Amino acid sequence: MIERNETAAVGEGLPWAELLERLPFNEAGLLPAIAQQHDTGEVLMLAWVSREALEETVATGRACYYSRSRGKLWRKGESSGQVQRLVELRLDCDGDTVLLRVDQQGPACHTGRRSCFYNALRGERVVVAEAPEIDPQALYGR
Amino acid sequence: MIERNETAAVGEGLPWAELLERLPFNEAGLLPAIAQQHDTGEVLMLAWVSREALEETVATGRACYYSRSRGKLWRKGESSGQVQRLVELRLDCDGDTVLLRVDQQGPACHTGRRSCFYNALRGERVVVAEAPEIDPQALYGR
Repeated sequence: MIERNETAAVGEGLPWAELLERLPFNEAGLLPAIAQQHDTGEVLMLAWVSREALEETVATGRACYYSRSRGKLWRKGESSGQVQRLVELRLDCDGDTVLLRVDQQGPACHTGRRSCFYNALRGERVVVAEAPEIDPQALYGR
Repeated sequence: MIERNETAAVGEGLPWAELLERLPFNEAGLLPAIAQQHDTGEVLMLAWVSREALEETVATGRACYYSRSRGKLWRKGESSGQVQRLVELRLDCDGDTVLLRVDQQGPACHTGRRSCFYNALRGERVVVAEAPEIDPQALYGR
């Protein structure tokens, strides 16, 4: 359905409620969601959203994902305190990926790093490119 | 295996060849790959990579994906001419998502737009936020 936007003019579009009914969730009922810091452009993480997670994200203005490992909604920051305030929600051309432009408080990564993408290929090795900002033990109170 | 990097110092890391053997490809043998314009931070698209696609991307320095619809390697730009030169390859903390920091020639999206994420939620509607840079008919010579 979102393909109808391909030839629409800027500012025109489709009703969100209808679109939500027809998003191409995968066999597990999920779509990948990229979280990007809205002002710096930094890619913070990739997680997954169910329809329910998407609805909660829009309703509350805070990123809510679906944790595949825990099998339930994951309100980002509920244990670490590092919430993501939603600035803008975007969908790609075929509607099968979500981009959450957010304002991330502190680190997005469970390791205490700002972004989860801290492993960089350099020559023959994949090396750590960024240090933690916060000790993860402090993040999770362990 | 990549979790060993969590507590490694900046600049330390793991051999790429060994890591590649142990990346957690999904049941279809794929990982999601985010393409980001390296200098502006713009998120251009999300696609999927197989092990072979990853190896080709690193070997050639040009983004190569796996097309789920066509069931084969997709050398980005092979039909549109809009190639993505690889600037840096990154992996996230659990190694199940790839971030390709690229230099994208022209539009990334098959609609002729710079980014595939041109659909933005505004109130009750999902509207087109950006116009095509190039007529897609010109891109694909139709």
